[in-house]
Amino acid sequence: MKTDIINIEILDTTLRDGAQGEGIVFSVRDKLAVAEALDELGVAWIEAGNPGSNPKDLEFFQLVRSLNFKNSQLCAFGATRKKGQKPGDDSQLRSLLEAGTETVVIFGKSWDLHVREVLKVEPEENIAMIADTVSFLKAEGRRVFYDAEHFFDGFTANPAYALSTIAAAREAGADLIVLCDTNGGTFPDEITHCMDEVLKIAANAPVGIHAHNDAGFALANSVSAIKAGCVHAQGTLVGFGERCGNTALAALIPSLELKMGLRCLPEGRLVRISEITRRIAEIANVSISDDMPYVGIHAFSHKAGMHVDGILKNRSSFEHIDPSAVGNDRHFLISEVGGRSVITERVKKIEPSITKDSPFIVSIAEKLKNLEADGWAFEGADASFELLVRRELGRYKPLFHIEAYRVMSEHPTGVSLSCSHAWVKVLVDGQHEIAAAEGEGPVNALDGALRRALTRFYPDLAKVRLDDYKVRVIDGKEATAAQVRVLIESTDGQRSWNTVGVSADIIDASRAALVDSIEYKLLCDIESMGNEQ
Amino acid sequence: MKTDIINIEILDTTLRDGAQGEGIVFSVRDKLAVAEALDELGVAWIEAGNPGSNPKDLEFFQLVRSLNFKNSQLCAFGATRKKGQKPGDDSQLRSLLEAGTETVVIFGKSWDLHVREVLKVEPEENIAMIADTVSFLKAEGRRVFYDAEHFFDGFTANPAYALSTIAAAREAGADLIVLCDTNGGTFPDEITHCMDEVLKIAANAPVGIHAHNDAGFALANSVSAIKAGCVHAQGTLVGFGERCGNTALAALIPSLELKMGLRCLPEGRLVRISEITRRIAEIANVSISDDMPYVGIHAFSHKAGMHVDGILKNRSSFEHIDPSAVGNDRHFLISEVGGRSVITERVKKIEPSITKDSPFIVSIAEKLKNLEADGWAFEGADASFELLVRRELGRYKPLFHIEAYRVMSEHPTGVSLSCSHAWVKVLVDGQHEIAAAEGEGPVNALDGALRRALTRFYPDLAKVRLDDYKVRVIDGKEATAAQVRVLIESTDGQRSWNTVGVSADIIDASRAALVDSIEYKLLCDIESMGNEQ
Repeated sequence: MKTDIINIEILDTTLRDGAQGEGIVFSVRDKLAVAEALDELGVAWIEAGNPGSNPKDLEFFQLVRSLNFKNSQLCAFGATRKKGQKPGDDSQLRSLLEAGTETVVIFGKSWDLHVREVLKVEPEENIAMIADTVSFLKAEGRRVFYDAEHFFDGFTANPAYALSTIAAAREAGADLIVLCDTNGGTFPDEITHCMDEVLKIAANAPVGIHAHNDAGFALANSVSAIKAGCVHAQGTLVGFGERCGNTALAALIPSLELKMGLRCLPEGRLVRISEITRRIAEIANVSISDDMPYVGIHAFSHKAGMHVDGILKNRSSFEHIDPSAVGNDRHFLISEVGGRSVITERVKKIEPSITKDSPFIVSIAEKLKNLEADGWAFEGADASFELLVRRELGRYKPLFHIEAYRVMSEHPTGVSLSCSHAWVKVLVDGQHEIAAAEGEGPVNALDGALRRALTRFYPDLAKVRLDDYKVRVIDGKEATAAQVRVLIESTDGQRSWNTVGVSADIIDASRAALVDSIEYKLLCDIESMGNEQ
Repeated sequence: MKTDIINIEILDTTLRDGAQGEGIVFSVRDKLAVAEALDELGVAWIEAGNPGSNPKDLEFFQLVRSLNFKNSQLCAFGATRKKGQKPGDDSQLRSLLEAGTETVVIFGKSWDLHVREVLKVEPEENIAMIADTVSFLKAEGRRVFYDAEHFFDGFTANPAYALSTIAAAREAGADLIVLCDTNGGTFPDEITHCMDEVLKIAANAPVGIHAHNDAGFALANSVSAIKAGCVHAQGTLVGFGERCGNTALAALIPSLELKMGLRCLPEGRLVRISEITRRIAEIANVSISDDMPYVGIHAFSHKAGMHVDGILKNRSSFEHIDPSAVGNDRHFLISEVGGRSVITERVKKIEPSITKDSPFIVSIAEKLKNLEADGWAFEGADASFELLVRRELGRYKPLFHIEAYRVMSEHPTGVSLSCSHAWVKVLVDGQHEIAAAEGEGPVNALDGALRRALTRFYPDLAKVRLDDYKVRVIDGKEATAAQVRVLIESTDGQRSWNTVGVSADIIDASRAALVDSIEYKLLCDIESMGNEQ
């Protein structure tokens, strides 16, 4: 188990609170994969489900026993006993025990409004429900974490009552008191405001924070609480959760470790956080926001020319941390506001002798500006940019030529024919080939026919597939006759590359991006063969 | 101009700092549409571009003069003069003046590291650059906002120097001092920490805050600054910007207005913020995060049974604000109770006798859910929604039928023929008509042929034109075979309407949206004739 000294214990609730986010659905298999990823990252606690409200969770707790976690401990989550019932008679609490975790998390009500209007019990009965439940679970030999639901709203409405619910949990033996901003509307200074009194009541029990992001303050509230004495932080790695989500731990942990010097993960794990956050998002079949702090793919992207110029002089001039500390990468974007430094950096990878003052850089910067005025954008199309540079350097020999194509979309279709179909005729080294394909849409058909025609000459193209296809109408105000920009992401299973095409005609724009994609693949194959010789 | 008392002046920099975000590219036309939307929302200031670094911005500043803003004032953005140069000789400053705005924003360096290593000038020269530039612009009769770039990092590194740069701007006549957390790594308590000294130096000039979200604290930092005395806040409505983005004003403004009682927008505008935020995202062809505080479509979505139960007993039990205050909607994910109220309101416009409990509402809610699961989105397609309701009510008789069409895109093209051309055969009241058209792209050709064939029966269609055409690939990860959603805005010169089509095939999706557009026009014409009789 854990050997490092951890200052702030992290509890990840992706599998419980995270699964309450809209669009987040985990199978039991997904849950096992998430738990393994979290253990790999090294969070102290994985809150893995609510077996009393979700029967699927019990199956998970049975299966998870066969996994051997290195860093994390599992806990199951449940509510206090029902009103007027003995804890031992409450089926929800029995399910919680059946989950078989050493540690259980129990939530209870701190806000008198909830006690009156939602639970509909007397204030004293709510206190008894908390105390009885904690005592019962302690008597069953469990470590008990007590989540004080709506603590901050409760403290604002009726501080004495809110504090008395915590006192009840603590006196009954709770091992940890967690203050929850369940509705997510609390401000950072309001968090600090009540911490002194909470710490007094908690009487040496550790205190934790569980924040939601409804006002956009989840991260700041967690930091406020930690600065005021909390030693345990809850959230979900990606930020999944009800409404606007829970505290995104992938954004919290780097601030705590890199800026506050607080250890949250075993040594050497922080550099894995970008990769593991993206992996968990993939398991949930969502993408993390590109602009997510620390781990987003744009988090260290620089577009303005002055920023790029600054970074090249001193990294810290426009970066608050070194991206490698969280396993993320710096990107310089090619764009009209990017300026010559970026272009030079990128051209140097192809031709190392080039400097910022070379006439070539001046001319290619001019060319890029004109292309961008026509609607081209190379910031998401590295491969097209590289081909453009090679063409301008005279280091590019087209490996095929499209002699003719026809793409048809029709309704009604002939028997056994898709709505869209295409043929393409290519010329490679003096030899002609023609091929046809059907497709879901005209671009899909064109792509199929083109790749089929070329595979005779370049069999490796069979491995290439399109991973992503984006269409942007550049000036929509001219309606269907506007310029269309197509961005394509291709992969051969080992690497990915991006290309762009622009035209008034979506078919022609797609053709340009497809041709670049194939040219780039062939070029890379030739160069890697050259390197191996 | 503004008549209300505004406590916190909002400066939106979507068109300047926002355009430096990865993937954000605005045409001049897009920029005009964004500016109009921001004026409609009622921000005090629109920072609209950097004419010295981007020639496209000068064109914008010329065109924008023809628009009549009700609430907002434009400002142009630039840098301090170049080292060793007179301000009047600096082409960048001349471009800034050419933009012709009453107010200009100038940024200068506060951090000695930047002065030494990026600008590479003596500390005194940097101070002179700030003072000279502000004096020059004041002498030219402009109101000058001074952005102290990297102020907080500068204050941490060398407080005396950072403060002296502000003093220089203030003494030269700057009308506003803006503290920028350019690298976005500052903590909320660090913001508060230096405010006392800044306010002293600012000597009664108003002070503003410009935050970035690299550590996830942009919103909290803005609130910290405002609590400590700032009266001006900068950001971008959606949160666009370099790296992790600027302060998302759509999330900041509701906190300030609803929770701190500070007026930021003219009265009655806050309820428009969800709609206008989504509109600006649409113009940039990106979607706002579903979990964005206040304005995201999941911001008031309730999934856990206990939460739904609580909300039904008392709204505030699980909502930090009433969603209608920001023009957003509550959604209950397990029952369609929430969604049904919205649908009922819309259906009532067509059939006033309908109530929330009508079986019709239940069935159409179910139908909408299924269509949305298939990728349809009616939020931006009122006309398609109305046709759907009429179809379900049995109040809809198709006015034409497409019997067959063929759309071709080819290369090389025949003599005098566009790359894309189409024919369409229609049936109207038992009569057939066929027509052909060329076009810029297959959709343009299909649109031309269809309208030509129908104009024989419905001559008023000659007045209709497409105003906007948007394509979104719904699940890009399946590449060119993914579902495609097409949104069309049509106009007949008097009114505009929006329709949607979804299909795996872009031609088929476009056909569906075009057919709805024409049906809706014909329906409106028939109804208005009926009303006139």
